[in-house]
Amino acid sequence: MTKEAAYSELVDRLKRAHVLGTVNGLISWDEQVNLPPDSADLRAEQLALMAELQHAAAGEPRIGELLETLERRCEELTGDQQVVLRCARRDYDRVVKLPPEFVREKARHSSEAFHAWARCKAASDFPGFAPYLEKHLLLARREAGYLGCEAAPYDYMIDRHDPGMTGAVIERLFGELKEGLVPLVREIVSSPVKAKAGIFRGFPVDGQRAFLRLVTERLGFNYRRGRIDVSLHPFCEGSGADIRMTTRFDEDNPLNSLFSAIHETGHGLYEQGMRLADQGTPLGQAVGMAVHESQSRLWENQVARSRGFWRFFERRFREEFPAQLGAVSPEELYLAVNAVRPTLIRVDSDEVTYNLHIILRFEIEKRLFSGTLAVADLPVAWAGLANDLLGLTPPNDRDGALQDVHWACGMFGYFPSYCLGNMMASQFWYKAQGDLPGLEDDFSRGDFARLLGWLRRNIHEQGRRYDTQELVKVVSGEPLKPAYLLRYLRERYLPLYRG
Amino acid sequence: MTKEAAYSELVDRLKRAHVLGTVNGLISWDEQVNLPPDSADLRAEQLALMAELQHAAAGEPRIGELLETLERRCEELTGDQQVVLRCARRDYDRVVKLPPEFVREKARHSSEAFHAWARCKAASDFPGFAPYLEKHLLLARREAGYLGCEAAPYDYMIDRHDPGMTGAVIERLFGELKEGLVPLVREIVSSPVKAKAGIFRGFPVDGQRAFLRLVTERLGFNYRRGRIDVSLHPFCEGSGADIRMTTRFDEDNPLNSLFSAIHETGHGLYEQGMRLADQGTPLGQAVGMAVHESQSRLWENQVARSRGFWRFFERRFREEFPAQLGAVSPEELYLAVNAVRPTLIRVDSDEVTYNLHIILRFEIEKRLFSGTLAVADLPVAWAGLANDLLGLTPPNDRDGALQDVHWACGMFGYFPSYCLGNMMASQFWYKAQGDLPGLEDDFSRGDFARLLGWLRRNIHEQGRRYDTQELVKVVSGEPLKPAYLLRYLRERYLPLYRG
Repeated sequence: MTKEAAYSELVDRLKRAHVLGTVNGLISWDEQVNLPPDSADLRAEQLALMAELQHAAAGEPRIGELLETLERRCEELTGDQQVVLRCARRDYDRVVKLPPEFVREKARHSSEAFHAWARCKAASDFPGFAPYLEKHLLLARREAGYLGCEAAPYDYMIDRHDPGMTGAVIERLFGELKEGLVPLVREIVSSPVKAKAGIFRGFPVDGQRAFLRLVTERLGFNYRRGRIDVSLHPFCEGSGADIRMTTRFDEDNPLNSLFSAIHETGHGLYEQGMRLADQGTPLGQAVGMAVHESQSRLWENQVARSRGFWRFFERRFREEFPAQLGAVSPEELYLAVNAVRPTLIRVDSDEVTYNLHIILRFEIEKRLFSGTLAVADLPVAWAGLANDLLGLTPPNDRDGALQDVHWACGMFGYFPSYCLGNMMASQFWYKAQGDLPGLEDDFSRGDFARLLGWLRRNIHEQGRRYDTQELVKVVSGEPLKPAYLLRYLRERYLPLYRG
Repeated sequence: MTKEAAYSELVDRLKRAHVLGTVNGLISWDEQVNLPPDSADLRAEQLALMAELQHAAAGEPRIGELLETLERRCEELTGDQQVVLRCARRDYDRVVKLPPEFVREKARHSSEAFHAWARCKAASDFPGFAPYLEKHLLLARREAGYLGCEAAPYDYMIDRHDPGMTGAVIERLFGELKEGLVPLVREIVSSPVKAKAGIFRGFPVDGQRAFLRLVTERLGFNYRRGRIDVSLHPFCEGSGADIRMTTRFDEDNPLNSLFSAIHETGHGLYEQGMRLADQGTPLGQAVGMAVHESQSRLWENQVARSRGFWRFFERRFREEFPAQLGAVSPEELYLAVNAVRPTLIRVDSDEVTYNLHIILRFEIEKRLFSGTLAVADLPVAWAGLANDLLGLTPPNDRDGALQDVHWACGMFGYFPSYCLGNMMASQFWYKAQGDLPGLEDDFSRGDFARLLGWLRRNIHEQGRRYDTQELVKVVSGEPLKPAYLLRYLRERYLPLYRG
């Protein structure tokens, strides 16, 4: 067999597993967007079966043979082919080390734990949820064991979401970040300048939909290969050939749906920025969740909370809602866009205090995996950390340890990605500004093409060529540093809140 | 292995193939309802791969072993189990006789032919489409050959949609029907009574949506296990656990969206009427397309064009659209609901002349398969038949032989089901009226539960227990006869059109 034939067959088989993955993604999207209330049992069966088939397709023995054939002649491959080979090997080894029974058991437990979480959250009943979380922790340790990572299961979980990242690196980065962040939050919160509450009332959904469509299309989202719908929690699903984003609408909070949509657009632009020809191969896949979040955050925060952005869109926003915005001054609007207010709920928080929510969760996960925190003691630990970091104490588990869905799905090591993504977004942002002088002036003209082109070349089209930390270094010339996020937050928020 | 264990494993494996089929159905629904315009290539890949996996799951050798084990002890099984065994054997033999390469080739050609058809229809270019149709005919003959039906490929295609039905039976039934139908149409068309055109203008879509929701819910559709959306051509997809119906809206033709929705509701009620526990086994599957159409047609025509139905819903319709219906008298409304007007386009036709469209297509298919009509001569044959049957000549291929999608998907032998379904609907209707005196009075009170219960017991819950013709006999006590459809049409239309 020639190496060309082997490589081409390998790519075909990777694409086959990818196509199954896209079907899985689509029916998950449909579950959140369209599912009739009593059809959940069938959907759970469909998802479990598709997970099994995807696992089987990704772990076909023939893929192993092709990898071996190609690895023997690795130096004859092109650079791109070597990237594909390296990543495919990594994925294959993981898949074949996980027994199908384990994959099924984890899928089933995730579904059960999800429904238990929804019930327990509604009842604010952490003890009811605790056994599901215990089992998820056991499954996570078992999974790490299959991969030979029993000594460092939390590092394994982190690496699953952000290849190359470790708990120790995150601990150092978050430590530095916290040191700068806590005084910054204190300064903003104690400022006499406050974003006015309750100035948005009665924004019809149709108008919100039209305005966010205008904005997200202008940012560069290609609606010929994607769409936006409504779900309880906004998310983005799919690959570049068909991206499904969601948002949610509240007539008294138009900025929420708008910024959710822009955030998801950032995810969508990343996926749409990879080459269609690379779809289904590691060159057409995201590095990991932190890099994904860096893209969503950069568009949501650095771009869409900037003066330049609002210089262009404010007039259009007012045209869509002339009566509703009649009494809101330009400065009140801009301050509302950049409101900072500590809250107990992560998803309701602003971009400054958001990072403290992540530091809290990282601290909890670390302790759970090191064995220094028992699941039963989690609410107490949560309350202590919330008090330390946010100055707030949750009145119940619903607004505390039960607020997020991630642990119900067994997603440990995922939370840090959000904050790492924020750091990366700032680091990329300063680099892009250096490379592209006058960038914010582009925004004032409604022109986002230079920024998008820069992100595509430097990040999107790289696929999985580099791991998380390598990519940051290649793009920005420096290792990941919290300093850029702190600088960005100070530059954006202190002038506003110093009045 | 005990027979209980073998039966239970068989059912598990049938359900597995069924679940894959439901995923396939869902992504097909999404293709019609949600697909972004440039995402069709990925969807074609997804559908082809899922078809392949479904074929593999339905043809697992283990299913063959289990069937043999159970067939040896067939007399020890319950009646229900014997039904499952008999149908599962039939399905299995068909699946394993079709080579996977053939399944893939047919799926690929269907996708290509579909897009070619869409192009050629837009350009009204039958010669451009002819090679695709030729290839579909070759594939159909090959498929019949794999199943040992090379001598009677058209009978094979008919049997695929309506088990037990043959071309000879249809020919006889359609001959009798035509004899009664042609003079009936002539009498109606020459009547001085005419439904007034253009009396419906400016019915907002939101109001139409609310009214059809009210109607379809009242008929018995369970929206906790289903939904209705919008697509170019209305259809119904899914199984009882999750039914997806569609309709389309035209502000100047509210009856079109309403009757489309009621038609699809009839399909949905059939699927929802089977027991959830039987889902994925032959006891939870429809007999075939003719029986399916009998359900959609019965609700659309016998029920929703009746005086009783409108006695209940007219007030509600007027409440939703007081201004638009202000100048429309009750009799004008009822005549609009029952307008008869020959047209070139099948999907725009009324329930009387509709059957002539089907007789035309059956005649064409018969000749194509017997070899007495070449594909190139199809438009001429079509024009001749349209003139004979409808008194109309298509001005172009778009309004003639290219109007329907079925042949582009290789669906031969499907058209007859529509007319067989109309016959069955009438035959069931008279039987139900005999069994349930005062049925139309129920409708006047908005009560459809007795009829639905009767259909469930007699038809829905039977699953595939009987083949098409057996079921008609079991339910109505007689073989399928066109006389009931003719009687129904005369009773409904002559009093109206005789003025």
